[in-house]
Amino acid sequence: MTLLVVGSVAFDSVQTPFGKKERVLGGSANFFSMSASLLTRVQLVGVIGEDFPEDHVGYLQQRGVDTAGLTRVPGRTFHWRGRYEYDLNEAHTLETQLNVFADFRPNLPEAFRRPDHLFLANIDPELQALVLEQVTRPKLVALDTMNYWISGKRQALLKVLRDVDVLFVNDAEARQLSGEHNVVKAGAAIRKMGPRTVIIKRGEYGALMLEHGTAFYVPAYPLEDVFDPTGAGDTFAGGVMGALDRWGGFNTQTARQAMVVGGVLASFVVEDFSFDRLRTTSLEDVQRRYADLRQFTDFKDLPTAD
Amino acid sequence: MTLLVVGSVAFDSVQTPFGKKERVLGGSANFFSMSASLLTRVQLVGVIGEDFPEDHVGYLQQRGVDTAGLTRVPGRTFHWRGRYEYDLNEAHTLETQLNVFADFRPNLPEAFRRPDHLFLANIDPELQALVLEQVTRPKLVALDTMNYWISGKRQALLKVLRDVDVLFVNDAEARQLSGEHNVVKAGAAIRKMGPRTVIIKRGEYGALMLEHGTAFYVPAYPLEDVFDPTGAGDTFAGGVMGALDRWGGFNTQTARQAMVVGGVLASFVVEDFSFDRLRTTSLEDVQRRYADLRQFTDFKDLPTAD
Repeated sequence: MTLLVVGSVAFDSVQTPFGKKERVLGGSANFFSMSASLLTRVQLVGVIGEDFPEDHVGYLQQRGVDTAGLTRVPGRTFHWRGRYEYDLNEAHTLETQLNVFADFRPNLPEAFRRPDHLFLANIDPELQALVLEQVTRPKLVALDTMNYWISGKRQALLKVLRDVDVLFVNDAEARQLSGEHNVVKAGAAIRKMGPRTVIIKRGEYGALMLEHGTAFYVPAYPLEDVFDPTGAGDTFAGGVMGALDRWGGFNTQTARQAMVVGGVLASFVVEDFSFDRLRTTSLEDVQRRYADLRQFTDFKDLPTAD
Repeated sequence: MTLLVVGSVAFDSVQTPFGKKERVLGGSANFFSMSASLLTRVQLVGVIGEDFPEDHVGYLQQRGVDTAGLTRVPGRTFHWRGRYEYDLNEAHTLETQLNVFADFRPNLPEAFRRPDHLFLANIDPELQALVLEQVTRPKLVALDTMNYWISGKRQALLKVLRDVDVLFVNDAEARQLSGEHNVVKAGAAIRKMGPRTVIIKRGEYGALMLEHGTAFYVPAYPLEDVFDPTGAGDTFAGGVMGALDRWGGFNTQTARQAMVVGGVLASFVVEDFSFDRLRTTSLEDVQRRYADLRQFTDFKDLPTAD
C-alpha cells in the first residue's frame, strides 16, 4: 500500500540540557518519512529551499521515500529554533523562519493522488483541505495540528476535521480544541467534530487512543537517556501510519499494534539529535522494543476465588 | 493475612474547581484503611483528638479494620487545608495544623506486632523506623514519603529505607530523593538505597513499577469526572497492599495485579470528596474496572510475516 505525507521539511536549531545543535535536519514530514519508511513506501510532499542538502533527498529515496512531491524553490528552507529545559515534554520556540514554507501550496504529482493512507502533518488547515481536494478518498486520513491553528484558523480547522478519521494532538491541544479540561471529555467532544479516533500524545507518559466506548493506552518506552524530543510526535505518527499501511487496514487490533510501533519509533528518535538514531534503527530493533512493551504492560486476570 | 498501616488520621478542608468541603475525613492511614479494608483485614495505628467522630471509628470497625492502635488523646485532630487548580495532579497546601499529631509516637498493641504486610504511610522517617523496631520482620514493608522529609530528614529517611522493600513516591519525590531527573535512572538510584521495588505514582497518567531489569505500567482508569484527588495516593497504596495481603505474597505477577487494583481504587476515590465514594464501592465494582483496564491495555504481537 502507499502512505502519503504532506508537511514541513526544515532545519532545526535545538538546545537541550544535554547539548546544542545548529541547523540539523528536521520538519514534520521529514521526521514522519524517516520513521514510516522503515515500514512502508512513503510519498512525501513538501518544499525546500536552495540551502537544503541534496544528499538528504537522496538518502530519503534510498529508504524508499518517493520525493517526487518535494519541491525545491528559490530561497531558504524553513528554520525552527527551539529550546528544552529538563522538562522535555515542553518545547520553547525561540524563532520560526518560514522562508520558502511561507508560500507553500501543495500540488500533488498525479501518482500521489490515490494513497491508501494520508497523513496531513501540522500545517495551515487550509492547505490540509487543499490536499484532501486533490486525492481520491484514502482508506484513512489522519491529521496533526497545533495551538497556533486551533486559535488562529479555528473555522478552517473545524472544516477539514469533518473529513478526518484520526486526529493526533497532545493534551493541551485536545483541551484547547474541545474546551474541555478532562481528556476523556475532550476526546468525546473532538469525535463529534469528525474524527472517529483521537490519539493523544503525552510525551514521557506515552499515548492514549480514544474511540467510541473504548480507550487504549501505550506507555512511553522507558529510557535512561532522552536526548532531544524534537520530532517525537511526528516520528510517532510515522510509526502509527507506517504500521497501518504495512500490516493492513485500521481496526481495533491493528490500530493498537500501530500505536505501540509508533511509541517504539519515538523512543528511538529521542535518543539523539534530529533523526540520527533512526538511520541505524532496524525493523528488528523495533520488534525488540515492541516485545518489551508487551512485557511491561502485561498483567493477568484477578484470582476468581479467594 | 494481616496488613498493618501506621500514619495520619485527619480532617481535610479542600477546594477544587468543582466544589469545596470543610473538615471532611482524611489522613493517609484513613484513606489507606478505607481502601485496603475492601480486600483484607487491616490493623490501623494513628492518633486522633477529642473532636474526631466516634462514628467513623465504628464505621472502620464495621469494615473489618482493627482500630486498637487508633489512640484518642486530648486536643484537636490533625487538620490539612489545601486547594487544587484544574491541574488536579498538584495539591497546594494552604495550612497544616498538626495538633495531636505533633506528639504522635506509634506504640503498637501486642496483637499488631506480627503483620504479614506493613505500610508506613507518609510520616516522620524516625517514627517509621520506630514502627519497624516494634514488629517481627513482615513479609513485605512498604513506605511512602514526601518532599518535606526528603529534604528535612534525609539521613533518617535513608536509614529506614535500608529496611524497606517497596517505596511509593511520585515523580517529583523520586527526582528529589535520587538527584536524577530521568525517572528510570531515579528508580535505579533509589533501588540502591534499599527498596527492591519503586512504585512511581503519576496521578492522571497512572503508575509505574520499577524493579531490577524490568518495569510495569498501569494507566489511570479513564474518568470523565475527577472531583477531588485528595488521598488518591494512599488509596492506591491501600489497594496495592490490600491485594497483596488478600491474594498472596509479592511476586512479579501478583505485584502487577496489585498495582492495577490500587489504580482502580484510586479511580473510585477521586470521584467524590473525602473517601465517600469508597463507602459504596464493592469488590465487584473493582473487578469490573480491573477488567476494563485489561481491555484498555491489551495489544497483540506484531504479525511475523508481511
